[in-house]
Amino acid sequence: MPKPPEHIDLLIEPTWIAPVDPDVLLTNHAVAIRQGRIVDVLPTPDAHQRYLPEQRVTLEGQILIPGLINLHTHAAMALMRGLADDLPLMEWLEKHIWPTEAAHLSPQFVLDGTRLACAEMLLGGITCFNDMYFYPDAAAIAAEEFGMRAMLGITVLEFPTPYASDAEDYLNKGLAVRERWLHNPLIGFCLAPHAPYTVADATFQRIATLAGQLNLPVHCHIHETHHEIESARRAQGVRPLSRLNSLGLLGTQFIGVHGVHLDETDIALLAAHGCSIAHCPTSNLKLASGIAPVASMRQSGINVGLGTDGAASNNRLDMFAEMRLAALLAKGTSGNASTLSAREALHMATLAGAIALGLSQETGSITPGKSADLVAVSLDALNMRPCYDPISHLVHVAGRENVTNVWVAGKCCVDHKRLASNTQNALESSIALWQNRLEVRRESCR
Amino acid sequence: MPKPPEHIDLLIEPTWIAPVDPDVLLTNHAVAIRQGRIVDVLPTPDAHQRYLPEQRVTLEGQILIPGLINLHTHAAMALMRGLADDLPLMEWLEKHIWPTEAAHLSPQFVLDGTRLACAEMLLGGITCFNDMYFYPDAAAIAAEEFGMRAMLGITVLEFPTPYASDAEDYLNKGLAVRERWLHNPLIGFCLAPHAPYTVADATFQRIATLAGQLNLPVHCHIHETHHEIESARRAQGVRPLSRLNSLGLLGTQFIGVHGVHLDETDIALLAAHGCSIAHCPTSNLKLASGIAPVASMRQSGINVGLGTDGAASNNRLDMFAEMRLAALLAKGTSGNASTLSAREALHMATLAGAIALGLSQETGSITPGKSADLVAVSLDALNMRPCYDPISHLVHVAGRENVTNVWVAGKCCVDHKRLASNTQNALESSIALWQNRLEVRRESCR
Repeated sequence: MPKPPEHIDLLIEPTWIAPVDPDVLLTNHAVAIRQGRIVDVLPTPDAHQRYLPEQRVTLEGQILIPGLINLHTHAAMALMRGLADDLPLMEWLEKHIWPTEAAHLSPQFVLDGTRLACAEMLLGGITCFNDMYFYPDAAAIAAEEFGMRAMLGITVLEFPTPYASDAEDYLNKGLAVRERWLHNPLIGFCLAPHAPYTVADATFQRIATLAGQLNLPVHCHIHETHHEIESARRAQGVRPLSRLNSLGLLGTQFIGVHGVHLDETDIALLAAHGCSIAHCPTSNLKLASGIAPVASMRQSGINVGLGTDGAASNNRLDMFAEMRLAALLAKGTSGNASTLSAREALHMATLAGAIALGLSQETGSITPGKSADLVAVSLDALNMRPCYDPISHLVHVAGRENVTNVWVAGKCCVDHKRLASNTQNALESSIALWQNRLEVRRESCR
Repeated sequence: MPKPPEHIDLLIEPTWIAPVDPDVLLTNHAVAIRQGRIVDVLPTPDAHQRYLPEQRVTLEGQILIPGLINLHTHAAMALMRGLADDLPLMEWLEKHIWPTEAAHLSPQFVLDGTRLACAEMLLGGITCFNDMYFYPDAAAIAAEEFGMRAMLGITVLEFPTPYASDAEDYLNKGLAVRERWLHNPLIGFCLAPHAPYTVADATFQRIATLAGQLNLPVHCHIHETHHEIESARRAQGVRPLSRLNSLGLLGTQFIGVHGVHLDETDIALLAAHGCSIAHCPTSNLKLASGIAPVASMRQSGINVGLGTDGAASNNRLDMFAEMRLAALLAKGTSGNASTLSAREALHMATLAGAIALGLSQETGSITPGKSADLVAVSLDALNMRPCYDPISHLVHVAGRENVTNVWVAGKCCVDHKRLASNTQNALESSIALWQNRLEVRRESCR
């Protein structure tokens, strides 16, 4: 006698599934979800026999992929999107970004800015972001409102901002926020020393100890510019990565952001310690930092995920753009068109991010047992036809505008290209207010 | 007594106008159009007094820009979009593209493929494309159906294809097609010798003569790969550009496509002769050719436009993607974030293309006297907020998905993101048929 069908909450039946793990393309398969978790990925006819879903979603002409993981951003900086473009890095930072932050940084700024970023990211298929900014409590509230998965930075600098006064103050405030959010399984934390040039040895050592004690990832800008490395060599006599290594920072919990300027020794060091890199190709070009040696890193076995960086240096929080640009740059700079295939780019934007964040048991692929963090992308538009290879199309033809539905932990966050949370109008009003305030500052600087 | 208002066909009232020539950003201005031409660009209140329009279009939250000019494509190859990705160049060409063309190339292939490309390009704000392919008669029919402006290649090769047998046959067929289309002001022709490695000296000389006699631009791949240059040096003892120069090809009518590998002598040669370059950044990366020295070319005074190349090596016919990538690459490779500003990228995608094609009196900017080739782009979506600088947003935030309305010679071709021509269903059926045919070939090759 056949088993009676099992009750599940949701059965999703797309035209294609790219589970990432395993690295295959499935057709005529369905994903069964119960209590926010993937319970099965199986042929659709079998699914109809085996499961009795509360809800069925059929996605004609669409591919289901794991939720995209934005491995590096400063979400609240969405309020500074395009505030000062086409400027040299130091002028951009010193005359525009830092003064604007000094004048406006507040919990409300972070709350509203992160709300905007969450809305943009979710609509573009990003279900998880790794953030580095101030007032993580405000960022956590925003992420929770939208139902997003977030890894928030316990950001640490030596110098004061409106948020904290010194390294100890940053750490204590961040750790206290972490305590308050232990109840929410979607909100996690990284220790986030800003960069080698803004954090002292003693602080790095304390962070290395804390990372081990609390089992937290460490999220840190590293080797972004040639200038950073040369200054460090002059001041400390070694390259920043060597310094971090001698301070005990490098390990599987370490997520180095950018890694644009890496020599063979740097790459060997990162590989030997099992570190991850958050590759941010758009930001690296836009700020004229350069092109990271992604092909070499990956060949050495370094886990490389993708990040958008903040909207002030991108200016889109768009992981489709990063996937495509990463693939294109790797081909163009390696001189080999088979470098960084579409499948590899998708892996970087999903599972590699989860591995970096210590979340690979939880998200990053459409694998039974994991959280149902899922994104449906339509490959049906005229400009996507014909379609010979859906995964190639996902990377080289599709854009975030083709994302139709998004689920985080089984909860629908985007439905037919619209945010499920009914916050768009309130959000638009708050952004308009911030734009007015920031524009006044901007005009007065001219 | 005030003058009575003049009758016009159309008054467009967007929130912003970026005319490109002059290089300003206008607010509260309108564009007056009569018989397909721009008659005035003036403050909106004055426009209401001076003109009595047959039709008024208000574009709230939108920026009006000149129609984008795709300076290099192989339109019909849209049918091969993503047919064979992530492969080394020669394998891609020899095992996939050329065999597919040998098996399928026909007037119907070009007609249907160019229709698909026209639909995609128009929906993405491209009003004019510079094509290099076979059966230009079929391509002209497609462009005319959609009301697009097209410069079609009188393509020339020494070796036979289903279309023609030798250089003379290619030339004669192309020139005959040109004669048949002289009546259509939107359809023009370029002499299109494929590349230095596929065209002989005598043919190049004949083309140089014809270009002068018929006043036609010359559209030719040049210095795309390192291999091309090294083979030429071995075979002819000189770099391909020097050879073309000695054959009399270089001049203001010359549009060199790609120009990835240019040394100082090459750049000086191009600049001295007033040549244009069609920069195709996505294709150059995707086929692993490299990164063209755009900043140096522009500094030397070379006119640089932008092209998508064919959809088989891109895989989007998307000039927004090319604008953004050109700007990003120029910054990233020059080490200076102020290189290639958003305004300069917009100029490259519009007026520079028109200059290259000898059409700068006709299109490429929103200037009284020119044809009304216009594109409206919405900057209103949540992911585009806030907006401090609309032209920066156009390049660094907007995408082709934000194009709402397109006019070519004053005729509306895209209305509220939909093609005005009612051909979408027929087009989808024909693409599905071609996909089936090409897939059969592809499977049988495995």
